[in-house]
Amino acid sequence: CTKKPTDTIASVAHDISNRQHLYITDPISPGSIFFLPGGTKIFNKLVGFMKLQQENKYGFEEVITPLIYRKSLWEQSGHWENYKEDMFRVEGQDTAKEEYGLKPMNCPGHCVIYKRFDKSYNDLPIRFSDFSPLHRNEASGALSGLTRVRKFHQDDGHIFCTPQQVEAEISKCLELIDLCYSKVFPLGKDGKPTNYMFRLSTRPDNYIGSLDVWNHAESVLTEILNRSGKEWSINSGDGAFYGPKIDVLLADHNGKNHQVATVQLDFQLPERFDLKFKDKDNTYKRPIMIHRAVFGSIERFMAMLIDSNNGKWPFWLNPRQCMVIPLNTKSESMMKASEEIVKRLRGEETATDKPVKLNSFHFNVDMDDRAEPVGYRIKDAILKNYSYLIMVGEKEIETQKFALRSRESRELQHLSTDEILQTFVKLEENYK
Amino acid sequence: CTKKPTDTIASVAHDISNRQHLYITDPISPGSIFFLPGGTKIFNKLVGFMKLQQENKYGFEEVITPLIYRKSLWEQSGHWENYKEDMFRVEGQDTAKEEYGLKPMNCPGHCVIYKRFDKSYNDLPIRFSDFSPLHRNEASGALSGLTRVRKFHQDDGHIFCTPQQVEAEISKCLELIDLCYSKVFPLGKDGKPTNYMFRLSTRPDNYIGSLDVWNHAESVLTEILNRSGKEWSINSGDGAFYGPKIDVLLADHNGKNHQVATVQLDFQLPERFDLKFKDKDNTYKRPIMIHRAVFGSIERFMAMLIDSNNGKWPFWLNPRQCMVIPLNTKSESMMKASEEIVKRLRGEETATDKPVKLNSFHFNVDMDDRAEPVGYRIKDAILKNYSYLIMVGEKEIETQKFALRSRESRELQHLSTDEILQTFVKLEENYK
Ligand SMILES: [Zn+2]
Ligand SMILES: [Zn+2]
Repeated sequence: CTKKPTDTIASVAHDISNRQHLYITDPISPGSIFFLPGGTKIFNKLVGFMKLQQENKYGFEEVITPLIYRKSLWEQSGHWENYKEDMFRVEGQDTAKEEYGLKPMNCPGHCVIYKRFDKSYNDLPIRFSDFSPLHRNEASGALSGLTRVRKFHQDDGHIFCTPQQVEAEISKCLELIDLCYSKVFPLGKDGKPTNYMFRLSTRPDNYIGSLDVWNHAESVLTEILNRSGKEWSINSGDGAFYGPKIDVLLADHNGKNHQVATVQLDFQLPERFDLKFKDKDNTYKRPIMIHRAVFGSIERFMAMLIDSNNGKWPFWLNPRQCMVIPLNTKSESMMKASEEIVKRLRGEETATDKPVKLNSFHFNVDMDDRAEPVGYRIKDAILKNYSYLIMVGEKEIETQKFALRSRESRELQHLSTDEILQTFVKLEENYK
Repeated sequence: CTKKPTDTIASVAHDISNRQHLYITDPISPGSIFFLPGGTKIFNKLVGFMKLQQENKYGFEEVITPLIYRKSLWEQSGHWENYKEDMFRVEGQDTAKEEYGLKPMNCPGHCVIYKRFDKSYNDLPIRFSDFSPLHRNEASGALSGLTRVRKFHQDDGHIFCTPQQVEAEISKCLELIDLCYSKVFPLGKDGKPTNYMFRLSTRPDNYIGSLDVWNHAESVLTEILNRSGKEWSINSGDGAFYGPKIDVLLADHNGKNHQVATVQLDFQLPERFDLKFKDKDNTYKRPIMIHRAVFGSIERFMAMLIDSNNGKWPFWLNPRQCMVIPLNTKSESMMKASEEIVKRLRGEETATDKPVKLNSFHFNVDMDDRAEPVGYRIKDAILKNYSYLIMVGEKEIETQKFALRSRESRELQHLSTDEILQTFVKLEENYK
């Protein structure tokens, strides 16, 4: 843990990434991250976790939507008026030269889908999730590692619901946020449990919509926050002009707060896109739209994770889960046994004419067969933050029980390859 | 099967999508697909299948790369010279107005990653995979459904290797292609096994590089094709100017050939990006680059699947895997038992404070509790292409063995919910 108190969250991530080869940046695409294989593994695990929760516990349906839209969409959504400077313009090289905007957010695209088919009250709530890459043209001077970027991904979601459903929907959003921050990801200082706060942003001066609707919405959010049992504060007048919002704040190692999750009520986009549903009384009504993200920017969430864990990834997220060390690299049997363990734990035993099975487990396991002393190789693997080490010696081969130790403790467990595999499966499927 | 011989592959996909709500298109983003929840499920399953094979059997490492790059990258790669008309230009709205290109392919981005760290012969082959969205500015008149698009995704991969490794690498590419087309995806007429062909495209007039290298490369490809035992043809002089290639052709229901997979040798990009590796003799040498895709465009591959299966998706890809039908919708016990089966098969039983487990199975199961005769609901579910139907009546509840039938056969199996779950898991994990 070489982190200095003066380091920023960006410099910590940069430092760990350099050591672990997680990502790079390049002036050829300022503000866009190149995720290297290790960083991509972490990125995909985070997305996979969120998809499983959203789709199988919180009723979301994933959609994949275009990245470029004609200017007219951004005029209709209001982005062209209010957000133009932050958007990238796109055009073809042909004579037509149609003008597009590269999307900074997914909301208008989801409105296009909502609108395509008639909706009845029965169909609501509709919950779309989307992991599209988003682009915002941040000033080049402000760009910094994972936290200030031009291209990023959100675990974005939009809920279209009736006014009566708002309270239940927001409660469920907070439930998923708590599952993520309190139960799965320890984001406190040096890997301690997360301590997050809510912040309610209320009606700004330039609000649109009726005062009644605002007052009701704010009182609903206040009540939900009170019931949450969590610390929360008010940011008076700081809501979006289209509705109040709840942000989740997380402190980094310096105590500086960063916004991660967000839940925003929106009375405006449904109006601008003329979204409707047919109610029980056969009249058409406006749905309310809730914008929400749990990680927020996945890139920034990764930076928060690194800031908390200092590169000591939990097993399930670790691009370096296990190092196998043959005690004597000149021993053919130790080398062979080690290779077999690696292959088994990596799950690379599929026959040529058979596909690797869906949902099968594949662990990131390497072998250190350099002609170096065992003590040196153990120390090196721990320095490189492998979660587990497996030592393969003569006695281990004889008994077929291999010596397993964790990064944190010298204590050895003697387990069969099967038992090690089962240990790893349990850790990974429970996000440990 | 209402397909007429005159229907094109695009119109077949369009027709099935309309009935199954797989995707929509909209003039607000011409040539970009909006994948609806059902289509997204299929898309994600295809990508998931390919990632598992590439990473755990064929040594690929996934990377996530930027979508926009400064003009200078495209000048270096040669795209600005040869491909400019097909590329979208991107620029910020700020005063700097830097000029970017929206990527039509991943290769230059992968060269940037390759170049960042020194490479030795030991590190090769390096195999990057990438599922980035790609944009090509096709003429708007040519746009059509899933097959002629402006935004698409490839199961893209680039192999950087030594000249000595080319043969083994290409053989492995063809092995993965065969696994995909012969073993997993039946893409023949009406769901019959796939009958694919190889086509070798050789040195064009405007080739670059030495004649020797070309002759050797072409003889290596010829030998591999001869050994493959598959039908193959030559397209003389139709190779890319940077190297020869093998394409995979697949016939649609009209016998029209479509290019899906491709394997291309490239002697040029390594030159243009000055890519090197340090060889055994301590001198720096050029790696050879292999561009390859197995599905090719995932969008077009989906169209080929639909063209072959007419919307009768195999179980693992089906957004509608199973319909549960309570025989008497007024019976509380039948309704309750049906709901429990749905919840169980959907895997939606996770406790509030626990996450849904990684790699857990979640089947697309619905319940038809409309007050319609059983025969009508069965017929309707089959029309809607549910793979399986579960009937829940009094006897079933008593014995806890439920009546399962497939879309294709009236034959009933009586199984416990556990047994049904295990049946489904087996089908899905083996891509059936
Ligand atoms: Zn939004
Ligand atoms: Zn390429």
